This record gives sequence, C-alpha cells and structure tokens, in this order.
Amino acid sequence: MDDGLFTKAGVFRQGTPDPAPRFAGLPKYNFVYGHNDPEQVPASALAEAAHKVLSQSGKLLGMYNLGQAPQGHDALREFVAKKAATRSGIACGAEDVMITSGSLQGMDLVNALFIAPGDTVIIEEFTYGGAIAKVQRLGGRIVAAPLDEGGIVIDRLRAILERLKAEGTTPRYIYTIPTVQNPTGSIMSLERRHQLLDLSREFGVPIFEDECYADLVWSGERPPALYALDPSRVVHIGSFSKSLAPALRIGYVIAPWDVLGRLMASKTDAGTGALEQMVVAEYVARHFDDHVDDLRAGLGRKLDVLVDALSREFGTAAELYRPEGGIFLWLKLPDHVDVRSFAATALAQGVAFNPGPEWACDPEGAKSHMRLCFALPTEETIREGVAELARIAYEATGVPERSANRPRA
Amino acid sequence: MDDGLFTKAGVFRQGTPDPAPRFAGLPKYNFVYGHNDPEQVPASALAEAAHKVLSQSGKLLGMYNLGQAPQGHDALREFVAKKAATRSGIACGAEDVMITSGSLQGMDLVNALFIAPGDTVIIEEFTYGGAIAKVQRLGGRIVAAPLDEGGIVIDRLRAILERLKAEGTTPRYIYTIPTVQNPTGSIMSLERRHQLLDLSREFGVPIFEDECYADLVWSGERPPALYALDPSRVVHIGSFSKSLAPALRIGYVIAPWDVLGRLMASKTDAGTGALEQMVVAEYVARHFDDHVDDLRAGLGRKLDVLVDALSREFGTAAELYRPEGGIFLWLKLPDHVDVRSFAATALAQGVAFNPGPEWACDPEGAKSHMRLCFALPTEETIREGVAELARIAYEATGVPERSANRPRA
Repeated sequence: MDDGLFTKAGVFRQGTPDPAPRFAGLPKYNFVYGHNDPEQVPASALAEAAHKVLSQSGKLLGMYNLGQAPQGHDALREFVAKKAATRSGIACGAEDVMITSGSLQGMDLVNALFIAPGDTVIIEEFTYGGAIAKVQRLGGRIVAAPLDEGGIVIDRLRAILERLKAEGTTPRYIYTIPTVQNPTGSIMSLERRHQLLDLSREFGVPIFEDECYADLVWSGERPPALYALDPSRVVHIGSFSKSLAPALRIGYVIAPWDVLGRLMASKTDAGTGALEQMVVAEYVARHFDDHVDDLRAGLGRKLDVLVDALSREFGTAAELYRPEGGIFLWLKLPDHVDVRSFAATALAQGVAFNPGPEWACDPEGAKSHMRLCFALPTEETIREGVAELARIAYEATGVPERSANRPRA
Repeated sequence: MDDGLFTKAGVFRQGTPDPAPRFAGLPKYNFVYGHNDPEQVPASALAEAAHKVLSQSGKLLGMYNLGQAPQGHDALREFVAKKAATRSGIACGAEDVMITSGSLQGMDLVNALFIAPGDTVIIEEFTYGGAIAKVQRLGGRIVAAPLDEGGIVIDRLRAILERLKAEGTTPRYIYTIPTVQNPTGSIMSLERRHQLLDLSREFGVPIFEDECYADLVWSGERPPALYALDPSRVVHIGSFSKSLAPALRIGYVIAPWDVLGRLMASKTDAGTGALEQMVVAEYVARHFDDHVDDLRAGLGRKLDVLVDALSREFGTAAELYRPEGGIFLWLKLPDHVDVRSFAATALAQGVAFNPGPEWACDPEGAKSHMRLCFALPTEETIREGVAELARIAYEATGVPERSANRPRA
C-alpha cells in the first residue's frame, strides 16, 4: 500500500485551496467575526419555543421542508413578511420570501444568478469582506462606490456609472448595506435612497440590498428599505444572525418571483434546516420586538464602553465612526499607520481585530482602518483588550503616542 | 417608472434557470423524494432534547459555531466518530469529522474539490439523481460503472479503468453507495470492497463513498465501510436525514485532513446550523440505536406492504429489486415500457414516482425502471397508490395486463 492518495500531486482539481488550519480556539480579546453577546441569547425562551413546537409539530420533520414549500417554513416566512412591513416598510407576503441558510447562502445564490466571469459589480468602498471574496471567487470585477457618513455619495456613483456606460459596461448590481452599513455603521438617508433608485432606473442596474443589521438601529428609527421604495429593481436580503444568534443559520431573501423563482431553481440543498426554522418561527412570533429592544440597549452599553476605552487608550490618534446601530465600530489611525503591520502580533497575543484592508474594495486605501466587533466581549474584556491593542500598536508603530492622556514611552 | 428591471433580457447572467414553479402541495400518493415516516420521527424525545440542551447551552448560540471549531459541534462530531466506529468499522476521531448542512453540501464541497470542467468521474450506472446533476453542473463527464445485485461489477470496472488509462484519463473519483445502494438497495460484499480498493490503488483513483442509508440495513449486519478498509484513498459522507429526519439538514464528511482541511477552506457558509447540531447531538447520544431499530422495523413492514401490493397489482410484469434496507424500491417493467410516457399523467392524478431515467447515468437504458419511496405513505396509501399506478400504467402502455391475477381489460 502506498502512503495515501491525497498527498499526491494532481489528485485534486487545479487551484484548490490549501487545507485550512486546525481550529486553535478563540482569542481572549475577540473583536472579530460578528459574534453576538451570549448573555443576550434568550436561551430559556428558545428552549420553551423548541419544546412547544417540536411537541406539536415535530413529526413534520419526517418530510423534506416539513411538507411545505421549498421556499421555507410557512410560519417563518409569514413572520419575515410581517417584520419587513413593520420595520422596513416593505409591502410583501410570505410568497415573496425565501428562507436561506444564513444570509450568506442568499448572497451566494444572488451572485450565481447575476455574475459571470468578467462581469462588473459595484460595491460600497468599505464593505463586508465576504461580499468582496464571493464576487472575486466568481471572477467578477469590483468597482468601489465612495462612501461618506451618509452612505453612498450619489454624485460620485453617477460619475462611475457614466464612465462604465461610456465603456459599454452595465454593472450587474450595486451592492449596498444602507441601514447600519458594514463597517461604517452609517444609515443612508431617505433622500439618498430615492436618488440611488433614480440611478438604478437611469442606468438599468439592479440594487442588491443587505439588511443584516437593520433591526439593531439605536434610535429604532430608520428610512424604508430600498426594496420598500421600488421592489421592481431591488433584491433584498436579511438575517436573524445579528438580531437573534449567529450560530443559527437563518436568513432570507425578499424579491419578485422573476428573481426568487430563479434563486429557488438554484437552491439545490434540499431545504434549509427546518428544526431551526420551526424554533425561530415559534420564538420570534412572541418575543422578537421585546428581544430586539433589550439586545439593542445592551449593545449600546457595550459600544459606550468601547468608545470610552478607545478615547482613553488612543486619544485623538483614533478617528471613530460611531455606528448608528449594530455590533461593530470602524476606526482609523493616522495615515502612516498600516494596521497589517501588527495584526499577526496582536493575534498571537490574544487580540483579534479586522484589518481595514479585509473590509475594503481597495485594500491599500484602508490600511489605517480597523473594525472592532464589541458584542461578544464583556465590558471588562473590552477595556482590557483595547488597552492591549494600544500597547501592541504603539510597540509596532509608535501610535498611539499618548494613552490616558499620558505619553506611552 | 418602467414595469420592472427583472423582466428585461440580459439582466441576469447567461444560462440562468427559468423561475421554479410555485409549490403546488404534495401529491396524494407520494413515492418520491426520500421523505421518511412522520410517525417515526421521535418528536417528544427531540422536544425534550431541545429543551435540555438549549436551557443548558443555548447561550453558546451567540457565537458562530458555538465558539467551537468550524468543523462542527464537538459533541456531534464525537457521536459521528463513535457511530462510524461501531456501525461502519471506521477508526477515526472527532477531528476527522466535518459536519455539513446535509450530505448534499458535503457532496457539493467534494465535487468542487475534485472536478473541473471536462474532468471524468465514474458513477454507478444507477444512482442518486442529484449526484449526476451536480457533476453535470460542474461540466464533469460521467462514465457509468455497471452494477449487479452485489454492487459494482469489478471486472467491468477494471475494463473501464483500463480503457480510460489508454486514453490518458485518470478519473477524479469513483462514486459509490456501497451499503444500501440508491436505487437498487444492494450491499456490496466485503470481497468486492477489497477488490474496489485494489483498483483504486492500481489506477490511482480516489473513492467517494456515500453512506446515507447504511444505518437502515434490515439485518443490522453489513461489511465495513470502504473508508474503514483504507482511509488513505476514500472520502466518506453520511447523514442523519434518513436515520432521523430529512428536514433536519445534518450530514457529515469523514476524510483525512488533506481532504477535510480543503473542504473546510471552501465551506464559506459561516457554519452549519448549530441549533440543529446541538439538538441532534443531545438526542442521538441517548436514543440513536433504539430509534434506528424501531425505524428499521417500521420501514421493513412498509416494504412488505409495497412488495405485496406490487405483486398483486403488477404480477410478473414488475421485476422487483428487493432492497437490503432503506426507504425505496427499484423495479423494472417490461423492456417495451417507457415509464416516462405516463409519469406526468400519474402526477396529475396524484401518483408521484421517480422515473428510472432520472436515476441513471444512461437515461435511455433505464426507461423501463422506476424508484418507489415507501417511507412516507401509510400502508393503506401504499396499497391504494400502487393500484392507481397500475391502472395509469395499464391505460398508457397496456402493462400490467393482469392485476390481482385477473386480466385488467
């Protein structure tokens, strides 16, 4: 017997990735990956919901999709439609909703529908790193839409669309996270939403709207979703990962059937996990609004702690983009600092953060930025972790020069 | 405003599917799609397991992957490793197991690792239709391995491998369901398993082993898995869909890290649903063996009813491949009958079956075959449905000429 076929060259297709590293445990100061606050997971209420719905309807698990539409569990789709109406201003029914295995599956399905190799898409200049990676894996070309504190800068997007049109290029979509943008935390105003839709009409470009964080706006107030304003040109995705628990993999797409029916035709996974759908449907029908109010308040307190710690440890060296909601904060160190220079060192010392380049269409242009997720660590861990981060950054870059208003050196 | 961007030509990438039809409900006589018996779903015990594990550990849902390895929930991987040892003869640990969102995700990940457009794979001549479709979507070329009542016919497979080698082709893998083959229900003997592995060594071709149905062998006895006999050249997948409930989407891959680590690197879904993993882990640790014994007995009774009904309604016109376990029966009508000629009529009259061509590498060569899943319908529904099927087949093809030992005409 030889020593194994899978160590031989050529046994896999070309371009396969190297094996992932073995899991090494979570870092002590964990400011990455969009975890939520475990203390805010409504474990008891979920346990009761699970017991009730499985006792009553567990036998339906014997049928794929509970014997219901492959689009997803009826009760959950009804809740999503109701939530979309009350929170996002969307007029839709359960028939317009498709449940996905996390919003990432929705993103994969939408990308597969729109993007062939060489196709162009427009993505906000700073955005969810996975959105960039998914387009790149499909061979798509990314053009960045500039952002300011109010979301996409419309005039600059118009100039980009005109330039692309002159080249003969119609982008496949404009991807935006208009309500609690990732990573900047901004909310696009109603006026800009209308302007963005006007550009969609003028240039014939669909909008791909991601509302993963929209239930976590501090003020509870937000403009209607882009989909609410014109469903004929928008594909809308959302999730319960941020509003309930990320280890649940329950997301959704809301779209006209011309889109949704095609996504369905490509969803060859024999359905999204129905036990999770049943439990979530049972829980959210009773508790969603109260839960989200509590969660938001708790996250807001953690944000305050993070901002306070950053002010103390980094002083004016860190420019903070205080978010309008959500679970992360985007910040910028002085231009000469490249956060990549100390990211690995920090991780080795137990401090994990998202370097700006991983969250940007133009990595070099975000080298001084970083994203800090504040939902998982306790308030004490946030304080300690930020102090550690300042120490490590200073040792690597000389920034911040002052912490707690005293020179570090 | 125009009447919608998504009705316009060219808005999607080329080659997108048409929208799926809206869900029209399940057929009355439902012999398709691998449903299980709802009465055999242990709803109460699952409810208790869910209540217990969510009460104890629900807060972990606040972290992606419960804060554990992205490979899957620790307790579930430990159970899978234990089950693989006791039932399949596989010596492995939790570190060799990756949990997937159904075995279909495992299949997708394995295919993506091995198959580039134009690559050749070998698949059993009759097989799971989804396995064929997934390879075709990746541009793979399928070569059929002939089957008899003992699984792959080794001499004929050798001839195929020699012919391919002479062409300069090394197939990417040999896909086999050795234990309760889908659709034939056969079990490959230990001798043939060794012979198949010998061919793998001689020709340098990996084996892709699918054990979805292996926990449902009537006798409870089966040879070791191919992976047990030589893990250095086999990728092994399995599932709880058939042994517990199909609407749960919990499958697994067992493989060396050279393979598993690469599958992990491609699994960009932020984890398989952790609530399902927790509940299944809690349930199976206490109840799996007893549950599977009960399920098998109940399925065996339904098979008896199906065989009895087919004998009564089709007599000698139907050649039955009585399965060694599982949830389906493969049968063949006389050579001149093309079951596709009445499949749509049957469905319109509430009788759904899988036409042989959908379960075969060479569709024309299976035109007289069909697959009947017997787990979902009640015994009475099985009897009625088979009578309806005989009536519809007779009206379309003149076969069966006799039912209940009397001429139909």
